[in-house]
Formats: sequence, structure tokens, C-alpha cells
Amino acid sequence: MREVTCFGKATVANFSCGFDVLGFSVEKPGDTVKLRKTEQFTGVKITVISGTDRLSSDPERNTAGFAVLKYLELFNLDNIGIELELWKDMPLGSGMGSSAASAAAAIRGIDKLFGERATDRQLLEIGMACEKLACGSAHADNIAPSLFGGIILIRETDTEDFVRIPVPKGLYCMIVHPDIVVNTKDSRNILPEKIPLEQAVRQWANIASLISALYQGDFDLLRRSLTDYIVEPVRRKLIPCFTEMRHIALQDDLFNLSISGSGPSVFSLSDSEDKLFHAAEKIKRLLCQNGIRSQYYISELTGKGSEIVDCEV
Amino acid sequence: MREVTCFGKATVANFSCGFDVLGFSVEKPGDTVKLRKTEQFTGVKITVISGTDRLSSDPERNTAGFAVLKYLELFNLDNIGIELELWKDMPLGSGMGSSAASAAAAIRGIDKLFGERATDRQLLEIGMACEKLACGSAHADNIAPSLFGGIILIRETDTEDFVRIPVPKGLYCMIVHPDIVVNTKDSRNILPEKIPLEQAVRQWANIASLISALYQGDFDLLRRSLTDYIVEPVRRKLIPCFTEMRHIALQDDLFNLSISGSGPSVFSLSDSEDKLFHAAEKIKRLLCQNGIRSQYYISELTGKGSEIVDCEV
Repeated sequence: MREVTCFGKATVANFSCGFDVLGFSVEKPGDTVKLRKTEQFTGVKITVISGTDRLSSDPERNTAGFAVLKYLELFNLDNIGIELELWKDMPLGSGMGSSAASAAAAIRGIDKLFGERATDRQLLEIGMACEKLACGSAHADNIAPSLFGGIILIRETDTEDFVRIPVPKGLYCMIVHPDIVVNTKDSRNILPEKIPLEQAVRQWANIASLISALYQGDFDLLRRSLTDYIVEPVRRKLIPCFTEMRHIALQDDLFNLSISGSGPSVFSLSDSEDKLFHAAEKIKRLLCQNGIRSQYYISELTGKGSEIVDCEV
Repeated sequence: MREVTCFGKATVANFSCGFDVLGFSVEKPGDTVKLRKTEQFTGVKITVISGTDRLSSDPERNTAGFAVLKYLELFNLDNIGIELELWKDMPLGSGMGSSAASAAAAIRGIDKLFGERATDRQLLEIGMACEKLACGSAHADNIAPSLFGGIILIRETDTEDFVRIPVPKGLYCMIVHPDIVVNTKDSRNILPEKIPLEQAVRQWANIASLISALYQGDFDLLRRSLTDYIVEPVRRKLIPCFTEMRHIALQDDLFNLSISGSGPSVFSLSDSEDKLFHAAEKIKRLLCQNGIRSQYYISELTGKGSEIVDCEV
């Protein structure tokens, strides 16, 4: 195989009551990475970055490029030359796992190019190294769902112990991205070091019933479980119109509305795509009235991760 | 129906990382309650309490008697006389849900006597009122599994929102009861009001993967998930030989060892009944060497709650 094109999916980390441990992938938005073998040089060269001018074209400082470098290193693939094109189709710093989507696309792509020789664990290890490059910490709750698809629980980051949670049929997600900047450091620093035990108990009751609802495909229980008592009450202050957006979501019978990643994007789930479109339009208008541009993305949760979209032999 | 005999099962509440929200029932030990309709009087009379001299025979102050009173009240069953015998076959204050076992037996029994007219929610409401009488708070993590059987998640106590978690086949439980007194108030007061967010995150990752392991019947994941980072490190100080008992459990390849309820009983799970018997004997010897008498109970988790064992028409 000479050339491969791969689509890397956006993800929602900090899935409601599952702060830091639960994330899922969506069908859109996402990034596209094209990888081409070349004999012109050895190493990795990023020839195109489209959709942003904020990313480095130095492969050591770009998650897609770094993923390819790490892969070649892991399998001792010397004397190989790779041209990389990165077509970003999602905003940076949006809370939708932008760096992970680029990395996942590159990882899936390079693995395809070299005969899919990596294990899931190896794919994840490379992905986590990319996240460390992008965010300073090797968290897995974006990269794992972007790589493997569906809903992923990270039981323990250090040991890369993750669990695939089943995705019930007929579950849809809306992500709304308000076009503002939330500093990731602010959203980290705002978190309390200690939390009341009583609240923690309510939180772990909710994540336990959330997992149960996903296994059972019980949407009523899912709806009741989607409350984050710990992180959201602190972080929502960084997101303009959060309370009003939630009000719209509840009015439109969605399964609550929560922060995607560390924001500023927010997301809602529902068993009805129509209800999500209806609410998304209202939220877009609300944000617009407050002087904030926004985009929204609605897709069914399919359980599929980042995918090869084209190959040339 | 004139007479009914019901067996109320012991329960393990505070199931590892599921402090305050997760409990399960075991096949033994338990309490037996016999209820007999009589025309000699109206109201409830406790005619026998066997196995302890520490319980009141005033039905208003005894969970079995109180359960019957509450049931008759709920269904406006006036002019009814009930004789109640309570055969306790488990220690009080042991951390095995003794008050709940008596209440569950009485609730199931009286409901059988009057044609099983109560809904699950009504049964639970009565049970929680009994727990409030016995322990001062209407918690559900003993009474719900004792009534309904299996592994029960209490998502929210106030709204009595509980979830039945599937019991995988071939899972066995050992409970060891060291014959010492742990004051429930001490074990409450010793808990911190606030806990580090980082530890809480590890805890809810574990309960999420515990639930997942139970749905999947994945005993490896179950074993990895059974760590309580929050409550056990504090409470184990109240239980003599805790570290040594755990050491034996791990040496014998059991799925960790944790506190049952608020102690002093401890429990372990395993897919091998033999391994549990082997470890239980070693733990009994260890406790004996430290001057502590103990009993142990081993049974398969069946998913069955408190059961009618005899009826007379």
C-alpha cells in the first residue's frame, strides 16, 4: 500500500458524571489525515495543514506527525519516508478532542499502511504519547474513544486499563461549539482539590447507573443518571449562557446538557435526532443573540472509531 | 392463608468501591420469621425471639414487628391479629444487615399472607422505614438486596431509585464475622467530610468498571475493580487483623477482601468455592490466634431475595 486516507473522529470526554474516566466518539466533526509513502526522503514531512494556521508543521510538535514518528520508532521502521496531509475540520481548543482526532487518524492510517501490525494497547500507547505532547498529560479519555469508537471507560490511566461500554441503538448526540476560547489551564485550576464525600457518593451512584443504563439500553435510567455534581457546577461558570442552554435542552426533552471535555462545547443526548436539531437551532439563536457565533454537530452514536476512508495500492 | 414462614437473607452493603450505593444478598446467614393470623387479638404480638436477648419484643421497636405494623397500616388492614416468631440466626451489629434481614423476612411474609398485593416500591418503602427505626437513617443498600435479591444499586435514596445489576454465574462469597463489637457511630464519625477529587475519580472509575464486569461476567475485570480508595483505608483501622486477613485472601487468589457494611465482618468474592473455604479456615485460625472467635459463611450469589419457606392454608 502506497497511500491511505483516514478520518479521525471528535470525542466527548468527561462524559457527565464520568469526569476524567468516560468518553465517547461521534461521527462528526473530525479531521482527515492522508499519508503517502515516498522515496524522496526518510522521516515524516507535513506537506499540508488545512483548516487552521495555529498548528506546527514540525512533526515533533504536531499530534498527527508525532503519531507517525512514534509508530515508525516502535516498529523500527527505518529508511521510510512519509508525506502527511492534515485536513482539520474541527476547531482547536473546543473540548471535542481535536488533538486526539488528528492523532487517531494518523495512527489508524500509518497502521493500515504497514499491515495493521499494532495491538490495541500499542495504538493506545502512541495515542497517549500524542496527548501528552498536545496537552501536557497522557490522558486517554479522548484518544481511546477516537481510536476504538463508542463509549470507553478508562479504569486506570497508568496501566492503560480501559473497558468498552456498549452503545445502545438509537442514541443520538448533539454537540454545540460556541466560538469562544476557554483556557484549559483555567478550567483545570478552577477545580477544587477536595470535594464533599456526600457529593462524591451521589456522583458514583450516577456513574454506576449510567453504565447500567448503557448495558440495558434503558434511556429513562440514562436520562436520570446524567448529572455531574462535582465538576460541572464549577466549570459551567466559564461557559456563557450555560444555564439558558440547559434550559432549552430540558424544555426540548433532551437527556440533560453537559460540558464536552473541558468546554466550551456542550453536548446533549437524545433518542430523537429531530429533538436535537430543534434544540440546536434554538441554542444557536440564543448564542447569536449574545454575540457568540457557534456551530453544531448532530450524529448517531455508532460505536465505530476512526476509519480508513480511502486506500491506494 | 393462615401461616407463613419466610427466610430473610444477610446482605453485604458498601460493596467495595460502591460505598453507600451498592449491596448484595447472600444465601446465608439469615433470619427466619413466622407469621400466623389469629383471632385472639388485633394488632401484632411477638411471641418468640430466638437467638438473641438484645431485641425488643415490642413490635414498634423491632424491625420485623414494625414491618408488619407498617404493612397493615399501608393497606388499611384493621381488625387483624398477627403472631410473629423471630428466629435470628445471625449476629447483631455484624455488618451483615441483621436488621434488614429480619425486616425483609417479615415484609415478604406478611405480603404473602395477604395475597402479594404490594408493589416493589411499597415493599422497599416499608423496609426503609424499618431501617430508619433500627439505624436512624432510611438507607436502602441492605434492605433492597435482602428483599429483591442479587446485586442492587441505589441510585438515589430519596426517590427510591434502584437498579438491579445482573449476578454473573459461578460467583461465590465468603463472609467472615469476627466476634467483636464495632460501634456504628464510630465507623460513621471516622469518615472524612471531604475527600481528594483525585481519589474520588479513581473510585468512580472502579465502580463503573465493577458494574461493567458484572454485566459482562468478566471476573478478571471484577477483580481489578474491587478496590475502595475512600472508606476502607479509614475504617479498616477499626477491624483487628484486617491487613493480615487481606494478605491471606490475596495469597489464596480471592478477589480482594473488603469490609461488609460498616464491619466488623469482612467479605471476599471468588469464582472458586474451594478457595473461599481454604482462605476462610486460615482467617479463622488467624483470628483465633489473636483471641478473637469468628464464624464464616460461604455461598454462591444466586440473585434470589428473601424467600417463603413454608405456608399453611
